[in-house]
This record gives sequence, structure tokens and C-alpha cells, in this order.
Amino acid sequence: MTKTVEFFYDIASPYSYLAAALVPRIEKLAPVQWRPFLIGGVFKATNNMMPASNPAKGQYMFQDLKRLFSFYQEPFTFPSRFPMNSLQAMRCITALPVERRAEVSMQLFRAYWADDADLGDMAVLAELVGADVLARASDDAVKAELKAATEEAAQRGAFGAPTFFLGDDMYFGEDRIFLLEHALHQQA
Amino acid sequence: MTKTVEFFYDIASPYSYLAAALVPRIEKLAPVQWRPFLIGGVFKATNNMMPASNPAKGQYMFQDLKRLFSFYQEPFTFPSRFPMNSLQAMRCITALPVERRAEVSMQLFRAYWADDADLGDMAVLAELVGADVLARASDDAVKAELKAATEEAAQRGAFGAPTFFLGDDMYFGEDRIFLLEHALHQQA
Repeated sequence: MTKTVEFFYDIASPYSYLAAALVPRIEKLAPVQWRPFLIGGVFKATNNMMPASNPAKGQYMFQDLKRLFSFYQEPFTFPSRFPMNSLQAMRCITALPVERRAEVSMQLFRAYWADDADLGDMAVLAELVGADVLARASDDAVKAELKAATEEAAQRGAFGAPTFFLGDDMYFGEDRIFLLEHALHQQA
Repeated sequence: MTKTVEFFYDIASPYSYLAAALVPRIEKLAPVQWRPFLIGGVFKATNNMMPASNPAKGQYMFQDLKRLFSFYQEPFTFPSRFPMNSLQAMRCITALPVERRAEVSMQLFRAYWADDADLGDMAVLAELVGADVLARASDDAVKAELKAATEEAAQRGAFGAPTFFLGDDMYFGEDRIFLLEHALHQQA
């Protein structure tokens, strides 16, 4: 019996982008459920802060990301608008049918983290996700679903992104995917 | 021409212990210089905090460490006294001749992180490092050397431990050793 891996991510998070690009590695071992949430909400709920809010960490993060994306050969250019407010983008992803979330999320990740797109511009967002999806993103049900996912993640222990769950077991960061793979191998 | 890798570590840091256990991997590619410093001093200099000071992070760290040490098959038992004040232990390491630092540091790491030794007890410390070394640990020159190493690390960008330097390039965390290895391979 194969368990599902839950993948909590936010387009605003560069390490979430890298994790998203590495999801196919996990999918060789288990199905992955893409779960959009708000990293800002999780930071707030746990009194945590984005790494870049500390000058020394922020400076290092810049080098670290360059190295990681180069190592994994994934396209990456530090955006001219950073940090970004991803609320509208995350609502759009939440408004999508579940089976389209992975594909559209990768498009949004690449648009912001490789092609410097302004995802705060509603015209840009509409072009990427479709005008119908952007319209649905303002539905109360969509807003509530995104808020609930964020609260659920924080309640289950998340304090940042990307965060994976295998049942109750939490794995934080793209750099723990190897431990998630290890756990899946041992269950197999 | 092979560059030396500098390894900044503190016995109080569990991720430093894991990094220390993995140093032989790096040594296949370059000589490693063991550089004792004070993680608390670096936190202070950069306005950073230990992960465990955030409840959500602290709870996760406990699981993360268990998984990592199990994966790498290194002995690990969470100490009954945590966090520890490592000042005296780090002064002892600094008091050692450079060529003995790696070996004695590993003994201290294992004593605290696997065998629950009380490194704040001077009798325990004396048994591990030798009474002569413990005596020399109080020399002003030794105190000054440890302080200078800590200040140097912070000035070069360090905000936690373990921290590696390859020339000016900093690598933070045992989970970035693969990027350090990658850089060394590309230089070779």
C-alpha cells in the first residue's frame, strides 16, 4: 500500500520552486499531492521569519540558490521584484481543479524565478492561468480553502516552505527530499 | 593546486557533529582545517538565533537529527543537558596543537551527542582532553584565539554552524557538503 506525499509550497519561496522541480524524483516512489499554502501565514503562526530578513542569511541565500539551481540544472534568475506578494497567485492555484495544479504551479514558479514575470500584475497572471481562473480566485470558497490549508500546515508543525508530509511525518526543505525518499524506500 | 577547506564548528551544535563525522568525504578532495569557534558568538554578531529557540523549529529539529544520524549511521542520543555551554570545551580544543584538533573534537562530539557526557563538568572534560590541556585552556592567548576565530567567521559571513569556507566561498550546513564537493570536483 503506497502512501501519498503531501507537498506544501508557495510560489514566493525559491526553495519551494526547487522542490517542485525535484518532485518527479519523489513520484518514482509515491504519488505527490500539490498543496498550495501561504508561507507568510505559516511564518506568522509560528513566529518564524523569512531567511532573507536576516542580512547575513539573506546574503548567503543568494549564493546558495545560485549554486543549488546550477547543480540541479534548473533555470533560475533572481527576480527584480523580491520579496513578492503571492496571495493572488496562490488563490489562482487553489481555484484550479486538483489535477491541473502541478502543471500551472510549475509555470508560475518558472515565470517568477526564471523569467522575472511580475505576478503581482493581474494581466500577467491572467495570461498565465487564464482569465476564468483569475476570476474564480476571488470566490470566498477559494479564499477559505487557501486559508484552511495554511492553518492546517501550521497546526501539523510546518514553519516554512517547502514542507512535505508522509502521513504525520514532516520533512522541511528541498534538502530533505533524500530522507523522504529513504523513508519511502523502507516502506516499500 | 589544491585549496584547503576551513571547517568552523562548535561542540554545542548537533549539525556540526554530523558535519565533523562527514569530513572524511571532503578530505578525499582537499585538506580540511578544523577551526573551533563559538556558535553563540556568531549568533550574537549576526542577530541570529539557535533553531531550537523557535518551538516549531525545535520540535522538528529533534526529528530531523534522528533521521539524519540514522541515515548516515552515526551514533546519536539527544543529550539530557541541552543546550550546553561549550565555552570551556572549545577553549580546550583551541589549546591543542593543530594536528590533534580533529581527533579530540570527534571525541568531544561523541561524548556529548552520543554518550550524554556532561562537558560542563571540569572533571569529565579533563578526562577527555587531559589535565594539561584543560589547564592551558585558561591562558589568555587561548581565549583570545577562540574569540578571534569567532569574530573572523562572522566577518566573513558566518551566521551559524557548521560553516565551511573554500577560499571566500561559504557553505553553511552539513547539508551543503555535496555542493562543496561539487565545487572541489570542478576545480580539480
